[in-house]
Amino acid sequence: MNATVARDDERAIREMVDNWLEASKKHDVTTLLGLLDDDVLFITPGQEPFGKEEFAAGNSEMNDVRMEAAIDIKEIEVIGDWAWMRSFLKVAFTPANGDTTKLSGHILTILRKTAAGQWVIYRDANFVKPESAK
Amino acid sequence: MNATVARDDERAIREMVDNWLEASKKHDVTTLLGLLDDDVLFITPGQEPFGKEEFAAGNSEMNDVRMEAAIDIKEIEVIGDWAWMRSFLKVAFTPANGDTTKLSGHILTILRKTAAGQWVIYRDANFVKPESAK
Repeated sequence: MNATVARDDERAIREMVDNWLEASKKHDVTTLLGLLDDDVLFITPGQEPFGKEEFAAGNSEMNDVRMEAAIDIKEIEVIGDWAWMRSFLKVAFTPANGDTTKLSGHILTILRKTAAGQWVIYRDANFVKPESAK
Repeated sequence: MNATVARDDERAIREMVDNWLEASKKHDVTTLLGLLDDDVLFITPGQEPFGKEEFAAGNSEMNDVRMEAAIDIKEIEVIGDWAWMRSFLKVAFTPANGDTTKLSGHILTILRKTAAGQWVIYRDANFVKPESAK
């Protein structure tokens, strides 16, 4: 593979992750859904893998919650129109009149590049959970 | 990519998974370690990602435990010398004089093909946990 192309793709994936976090903070579900493959699957502890529709339903309940988030991207590997990424995410949610809940965890993500050249999330193995829960 | 080559690789990965489970049942750590990339990382709930050495240490404590296992491979995608696989694993451990513990969970695995043509595990996001724990 051409190394320059792979570097450009890596940069595009990092920008996509930044867009993802910004859209999450703004509860901009339209942007979030645009960064997901139609056949996306989230794999998380304690429940069956779920797709785009369930993700949207979960997010629509968050409108009054303030969110802070920081991601540490540990590695990105681009292989043609596929890529995978390992990261560690920290999130803090604060409801309008409530206490802050902190969550964190490792994530292993598979991404695809669409025909239009946009990187989207295809599989997301997500270990993010409340920091108090051991 | 040549479709026949991808099918051959998919078959090789399925054989590798079968070998993995057989070696697990026999506590054949040498075979298991041979199916891991030297830089493998296991990502699991509630602990930091760990590598080959910690995997070997954990396995050496299992010699008196009988193990049954069944895996349902949900999807395999081969991209050149990389592949990813989504699966659901059921495991049952029975100590020499003890009760059986059943575990199950989803797994998202990244695999690499070595220069020698052997598929090995590179990243393993593993949600397998005791079935009683909700």
